Amino acid sequence: MKPAVAVFDLFGTLLDIASLRAVAAGVAADPDAFVALWREKQIAYSFAGTIMGLHEDFDALTGYALAYAAAKTGTSLDPAQTRRLNEAWHAVAAYPDAAPLLRALREGGLPCVVLTNGTPAGAAAALANAGIAELLDATLSVEAAGAYKPDPRVYALVTARYAIAPEQAVFVTSNGWDATGAAAFGMQVAWCNRGGAPAETFGPPPRWTVSSLDEVAALAAAEWSP
Amino acid sequence: MKPAVAVFDLFGTLLDIASLRAVAAGVAADPDAFVALWREKQIAYSFAGTIMGLHEDFDALTGYALAYAAAKTGTSLDPAQTRRLNEAWHAVAAYPDAAPLLRALREGGLPCVVLTNGTPAGAAAALANAGIAELLDATLSVEAAGAYKPDPRVYALVTARYAIAPEQAVFVTSNGWDATGAAAFGMQVAWCNRGGAPAETFGPPPRWTVSSLDEVAALAAAEWSP
Repeated sequence: MKPAVAVFDLFGTLLDIASLRAVAAGVAADPDAFVALWREKQIAYSFAGTIMGLHEDFDALTGYALAYAAAKTGTSLDPAQTRRLNEAWHAVAAYPDAAPLLRALREGGLPCVVLTNGTPAGAAAALANAGIAELLDATLSVEAAGAYKPDPRVYALVTARYAIAPEQAVFVTSNGWDATGAAAFGMQVAWCNRGGAPAETFGPPPRWTVSSLDEVAALAAAEWSP
Repeated sequence: MKPAVAVFDLFGTLLDIASLRAVAAGVAADPDAFVALWREKQIAYSFAGTIMGLHEDFDALTGYALAYAAAKTGTSLDPAQTRRLNEAWHAVAAYPDAAPLLRALREGGLPCVVLTNGTPAGAAAALANAGIAELLDATLSVEAAGAYKPDPRVYALVTARYAIAPEQAVFVTSNGWDATGAAAFGMQVAWCNRGGAPAETFGPPPRWTVSSLDEVAALAAAEWSP
């Protein structure tokens, strides 16, 4: 079935958060481990806050997670370093295969939408800095739902916006838990598993597992034609 | 204020899940890392499933998380090894300071209750094997709520059972996110931080931070008297 819309996660899917390491390299003894811990805690807080019904926006959670990662690793951060690290989320690079995919899908008549944990302003800045803002038809932020992914209220922002059934949306994400959430909601999910992570063992599996966005373009050409 | 009930998390708080390492030592190259990954994924699945509204019990999530940890670490497990590892959750040892604290609190007239992510049968087996079942007045499982901690519906099992306000319960847990959840619900929380982890930076803080259950006993003697 030809989908009505292609939906993309932002951080880690269209944008490469590995570029945070360069900023962390100035302050952390092990920048890779520092960024991994920071990211893990950012997501853990988004999960816990959603379950507790205690919502704060992603910029706030990013800052809390940074403070935790710093404390855990014994990294001391002055206010300027803290600001530079938090703002680095809005200046990460696009993956090289992101723009070609978005162009190809839109040339094929498929609207391309971002659905992100990020704030509206943060996501807009990140997309502009990455040079792919003009390739997207809309950016939907979890802030409109007051909860984080994988809450079904978040995925419903897409189906409400386009007045479609869940299965009319294809959803592309690099995060296993996001793939599970979108699949549980009923979307057709492509899990972009660049790092060769193991498949999630809980919840409905993605329809497709790919290792790059180029493969999503190939899928679209082969399977999503009108 | 003298509390009406003392509530305890089970795995990691009264029971020492480090004893899982001995079982993992037979199969995993790095048993400590294997158990840490297994535990982390077990909790991540409990969070994600609660957010998605996709509930399966803790024994099931433990099994899914084990399969993920094995795949991630390249550990091959035969069915007998898988069963032995999953069943090891029901045979972990009590911390040496658990029984003395429970005895002291009950001698002081305070009912002691477990509130656990575990299944009713799994928690009962674990408490019996650890030799502390008879020191508890009740064991409440998240299964009665159909959601995992830190969902407020879980903490409400305690207040409903004892017909009390949240602040009449003291809640003791070693998990930072569980401490945050119980504090957000309104309980008086003692975070048992045996490992010297950094404090959580998101959500309401615990009322007390202690490094052992012995310190909880001291708190009770000093502050929870009638």
